[in-house]
Amino acid sequence: MKYETICLNEERNVTLTSFILPVGGEFRNIPARPAILILPGGGYGMCSEREAEPVAMSYLAAGYDAFILRYSVREHRKWPNPLDDYEQAMSYIREHAKKWHILPDKIAVIGFSAGGHLAAAAATMAKNRPNAAVLGYAVVTEDVIGCNDTAPDTVGEVDLQTPPCFLFHARCDGTVPVENSLRFMTALAQKGITFESHIYGFGPHGFSKGDSSLEVPRKDLCSRIPNWVADSIGFLKDVFGDFGPDGLDEPRCSHFINGNFEPMLSGECTLIKLSAIPEAAQAIRGVVSKAMTFDGSKATLEGMVSQFPHMMFCDICGFSLASAEEKQAALDTLAQIPNPDYEG
Amino acid sequence: MKYETICLNEERNVTLTSFILPVGGEFRNIPARPAILILPGGGYGMCSEREAEPVAMSYLAAGYDAFILRYSVREHRKWPNPLDDYEQAMSYIREHAKKWHILPDKIAVIGFSAGGHLAAAAATMAKNRPNAAVLGYAVVTEDVIGCNDTAPDTVGEVDLQTPPCFLFHARCDGTVPVENSLRFMTALAQKGITFESHIYGFGPHGFSKGDSSLEVPRKDLCSRIPNWVADSIGFLKDVFGDFGPDGLDEPRCSHFINGNFEPMLSGECTLIKLSAIPEAAQAIRGVVSKAMTFDGSKATLEGMVSQFPHMMFCDICGFSLASAEEKQAALDTLAQIPNPDYEG
Amino acid sequence: MKYETICLNEERNVTLTSFILPVGGEFRNIPARPAILILPGGGYGMCSEREAEPVAMSYLAAGYDAFILRYSVREHRKWPNPLDDYEQAMSYIREHAKKWHILPDKIAVIGFSAGGHLAAAAATMAKNRPNAAVLGYAVVTEDVIGCNDTAPDTVGEVDLQTPPCFLFHARCDGTVPVENSLRFMTALAQKGITFESHIYGFGPHGFSKGDSSLEVPRKDLCSRIPNWVADSIGFLKDVFGDFGPDGLDEPRCSHFINGNFEPMLSGECTLIKLSAIPEAAQAIRGVVSKAMTFDGSKATLEGMVSQFPHMMFCDICGFSLASAEEKQAALDTLAQIPNPDYEG
Amino acid sequence: MKYETICLNEERNVTLTSFILPVGGEFRNIPARPAILILPGGGYGMCSEREAEPVAMSYLAAGYDAFILRYSVREHRKWPNPLDDYEQAMSYIREHAKKWHILPDKIAVIGFSAGGHLAAAAATMAKNRPNAAVLGYAVVTEDVIGCNDTAPDTVGEVDLQTPPCFLFHARCDGTVPVENSLRFMTALAQKGITFESHIYGFGPHGFSKGDSSLEVPRKDLCSRIPNWVADSIGFLKDVFGDFGPDGLDEPRCSHFINGNFEPMLSGECTLIKLSAIPEAAQAIRGVVSKAMTFDGSKATLEGMVSQFPHMMFCDICGFSLASAEEKQAALDTLAQIPNPDYEG
Repeated sequence: MKYETICLNEERNVTLTSFILPVGGEFRNIPARPAILILPGGGYGMCSEREAEPVAMSYLAAGYDAFILRYSVREHRKWPNPLDDYEQAMSYIREHAKKWHILPDKIAVIGFSAGGHLAAAAATMAKNRPNAAVLGYAVVTEDVIGCNDTAPDTVGEVDLQTPPCFLFHARCDGTVPVENSLRFMTALAQKGITFESHIYGFGPHGFSKGDSSLEVPRKDLCSRIPNWVADSIGFLKDVFGDFGPDGLDEPRCSHFINGNFEPMLSGECTLIKLSAIPEAAQAIRGVVSKAMTFDGSKATLEGMVSQFPHMMFCDICGFSLASAEEKQAALDTLAQIPNPDYEG
Repeated sequence: MKYETICLNEERNVTLTSFILPVGGEFRNIPARPAILILPGGGYGMCSEREAEPVAMSYLAAGYDAFILRYSVREHRKWPNPLDDYEQAMSYIREHAKKWHILPDKIAVIGFSAGGHLAAAAATMAKNRPNAAVLGYAVVTEDVIGCNDTAPDTVGEVDLQTPPCFLFHARCDGTVPVENSLRFMTALAQKGITFESHIYGFGPHGFSKGDSSLEVPRKDLCSRIPNWVADSIGFLKDVFGDFGPDGLDEPRCSHFINGNFEPMLSGECTLIKLSAIPEAAQAIRGVVSKAMTFDGSKATLEGMVSQFPHMMFCDICGFSLASAEEKQAALDTLAQIPNPDYEG
Repeated sequence: MKYETICLNEERNVTLTSFILPVGGEFRNIPARPAILILPGGGYGMCSEREAEPVAMSYLAAGYDAFILRYSVREHRKWPNPLDDYEQAMSYIREHAKKWHILPDKIAVIGFSAGGHLAAAAATMAKNRPNAAVLGYAVVTEDVIGCNDTAPDTVGEVDLQTPPCFLFHARCDGTVPVENSLRFMTALAQKGITFESHIYGFGPHGFSKGDSSLEVPRKDLCSRIPNWVADSIGFLKDVFGDFGPDGLDEPRCSHFINGNFEPMLSGECTLIKLSAIPEAAQAIRGVVSKAMTFDGSKATLEGMVSQFPHMMFCDICGFSLASAEEKQAALDTLAQIPNPDYEG
Repeated sequence: MKYETICLNEERNVTLTSFILPVGGEFRNIPARPAILILPGGGYGMCSEREAEPVAMSYLAAGYDAFILRYSVREHRKWPNPLDDYEQAMSYIREHAKKWHILPDKIAVIGFSAGGHLAAAAATMAKNRPNAAVLGYAVVTEDVIGCNDTAPDTVGEVDLQTPPCFLFHARCDGTVPVENSLRFMTALAQKGITFESHIYGFGPHGFSKGDSSLEVPRKDLCSRIPNWVADSIGFLKDVFGDFGPDGLDEPRCSHFINGNFEPMLSGECTLIKLSAIPEAAQAIRGVVSKAMTFDGSKATLEGMVSQFPHMMFCDICGFSLASAEEKQAALDTLAQIPNPDYEG
């Protein structure tokens, strides 16, 4: 392992600690590794050690390289200092990706509490976006003002470049209300972005990994809480791909949940979207009207849209009696139609 | 085991199947059991077998009695028929609770998809509320109109009598969008009601338990999905109490996440709530201003409210240097003040 | 579900309770199911309810049909009465396999404590062998005499027809010492039979599933103990095959761990076995001597046998530089040579 | 974290790499940590990187300090060189325990394959014994001769100073047969030493943590295999104590499974042992003969010994109707009697 701490900004006491695992040799199927950048919490008044190295160890144990950014806090917390620190760190990592055998497009960020705010800002506002974000009991709304009155609400910043996110939170968190995670999820849902979330029945703020070595002070903790660690690793494997015989496997999960957010239409677009675009509606009407229905009645585009508005056209194709040629013709037509709502 | 199916409504073909486990004897610490009432999905067009007995078996394996309600569907689905079926079933179970050795205030409901709609209606609108609700990829918003145009949106019905809820959903469900669960959680959050939720990164609609014996048709399924079964049992144990040496233990988790929703004020009320009630603000000001702060500065009620608005007063007591007498006096005063926002 | 109890022997009060799940219809990929026959413990003085229905529920939850045999105890416990009861039950199930949609060659037996003795006897001595056996803190040695002085030691009865076994036990069991499981495993190892075992660091005798609803009286229980339930289901899926799109998938795990116990030689035989049969040794010498070695030295059959005696010839083929033709020729030759030690 | 590699023996290329976590400060309930010393496998021909740092990371993630010993291999492998390396490393760690904030009596050793041989030798033959040992697909019998013909069989060396052990192995390991683990367990059982073991239904030799980042080359792996990592951490917490509010909690599990191996007799001795010592038999006879029996018959010492020879006298006390005074008197008498078989 290569382990070192470099100073990114002496005046603001910003440091980047790296834990870089070996590749090749006995790890011959791993020419390069995915990585995670850790942003500890601490109310922009400190960077908690409880959310730094212990978190790194869990991702290292799963074969990920890890970095800890100790960003600008206290008198240096004024926005955009912390986000600038992040940008500098992520640029530094990506610049050294080849040298350190890191996959530059498989770098996640994880943040806790105020560090979760910074992670959310990185995911929504940064120039150097991470490729996935893990947000732990993160203060992502204007609630952040309580600890840093210059820091922005990030919910409104969620855009199509926001990467897949994994969120976790205890329901009765009295420091950062669970509404923070709920509102962020709602924004992600509106943009069609993949996410996973686990809101646990009870537990305090700031439980870190929920492990016996980290619960200080000890509070009653819902037994599911420690699961987020393995679950977040599973999520990263789904969106980055798992270690395979020859580098990472194909991801099992895409950036967007369907095709509604891409530049051109496709079979992954939903019925309600396609039916609202006359040219697309015409292209798919025949195939949809040959769909097998539950009760054997005749399907219509309008009927299917009203029953299954969010179903993708390709799923309808799966139970339509239309010919393969007819389906392919519909798909070919869609592929020629620009997405009128595309925000890119 | 006692296993039987009775007909609740012959005309509408409504049946209640019961699986009742033995008590006493070798189960000498179990004089009575908690129970769960299962509402299968099927778009109000059928009651799916994949979400009926296989689900019962998992809760039976954990020591819960189980019931399956096959409610009014197809031509009988007109609202409030299904809810009436639920009311009849729950009344029937509670009336027989003593005979069947069931704890009448520890009865959960679980529903999937359209059955999840009915479970949500039971939790928010029924006369006979369940004591907890598990909502699986449930269609709880006006989206329900797609399969039952007489059925109500349940999100707006969430009230203080709504019991603790456990929700799960796949992020990219194309039949019932995840916004259904998000909006229900948001409503629960506003009412201070305990909930737990798990939104999985990917997976189809209708995965039931996510078990290999139930995936029909087989689709790619996020590896965390099957966890909801054990997690929901853990949640029920948290809110009902686990099996103990003498009946169920005390619950680890309350109906409400804090005291803001009770008839009288208390130490479990949040700072922002108490500070807005002049009499309460005066009662707690002394204790709060003796709180130890992060940076050693002098605490004030206003400062603490702005930093930690959602923290409970009793938590502040934990790190206030005020005397035990002073704290107790504050709590005694609060206990005399009616909650002006009480909706009861 | 079909649920009924039939009397197998009125005089000895022997009953068979069946829990049979539906097939076809919505379970369209399940034309027939695997099953498990449960033999509760109780020192041949009773059949414990704590090891009967609660166990059935867990296997039913996984899609297995379940049966409980309440066999001859107390004054009827004289051997071979209990084994005769088992034979009668297993015959009855297999005779009805077609009617009940059970796979007749995918029927496991599970027994606890004295019921584990009976399960071990079924696995080693019965005419109607089960297809797998789960032995829970089972008294399989002459220790059984303490509760039934007519019952046989089963360890010496392990033979090549003994099916794959899954064993679990608490290390400090003071009623049935862990040596019982150790000696049974040792006998299985000698016969090359597949097994899995979990011996937990501490815990009492008779913990059943280790679930909070079953610990009576409550004792301190090692946290890994409850895992045996899911692990045993995983093991059964490995040896029977998991539910697939068209009936059960191929098993991932065979009856024997290598080819040494089959009628004819094969590439699955070990080096030490093949090298002791002159004709076989000659057949494989060329391929083995072209194996790549750790330190680049020249391989010899004798050297490889001394270093890796238990490695299968087919594994050597994987890192031998011999040609495909040469390897195939060796395999073809082996397939013509009868196994001189075959006991079948 | 403190991370460094020191050279223990330049001639033999022996190094010790240390990963030492911080204590105190935010980890205020952790004044010192338990630790683990890792002995990678590699047939005494190398020290595999796949069983070194990736293993350290998992124990570090659980709050344990970790050390990797790269011991004498190849031309330096002659016994007792590797054991001498271990002795030197363990002495070095214990000498620095105070400085490094390590609990000197809570240091485990873990070894894989040939490293498991060395770990077993450390546990049974070393002057500086570890406080627990984890043995992964370890070659502990004379099978070790295949890779190091000077190395000893360790099974015969198991003694009362051997610490609690955790063993894991794949059933069909063709490089190190499972009999190695079985014979070691049998020896541990004879000495009354606590152990836990997991033998998995199938899988290859050398799977390390069984994680996707470590399976090289990929082979079919039983799904339970990766569980050994968390299970071994759970076992270490049971025998060392878990992290508590004030250092480590009390262990839940002792070195010996009963009192038969201590210098003086006690209530933790078994019936069969006590009954064979006339003075002890006389002391307990009264209490045992007042035990409640299953069928209401009169208990006798001889009868109880024949039925429950391995039950501890204190367990019998739990269901004897003898008076508290009578029980205490028996215990007091036992405490005066030296254990005639004591090997200490």
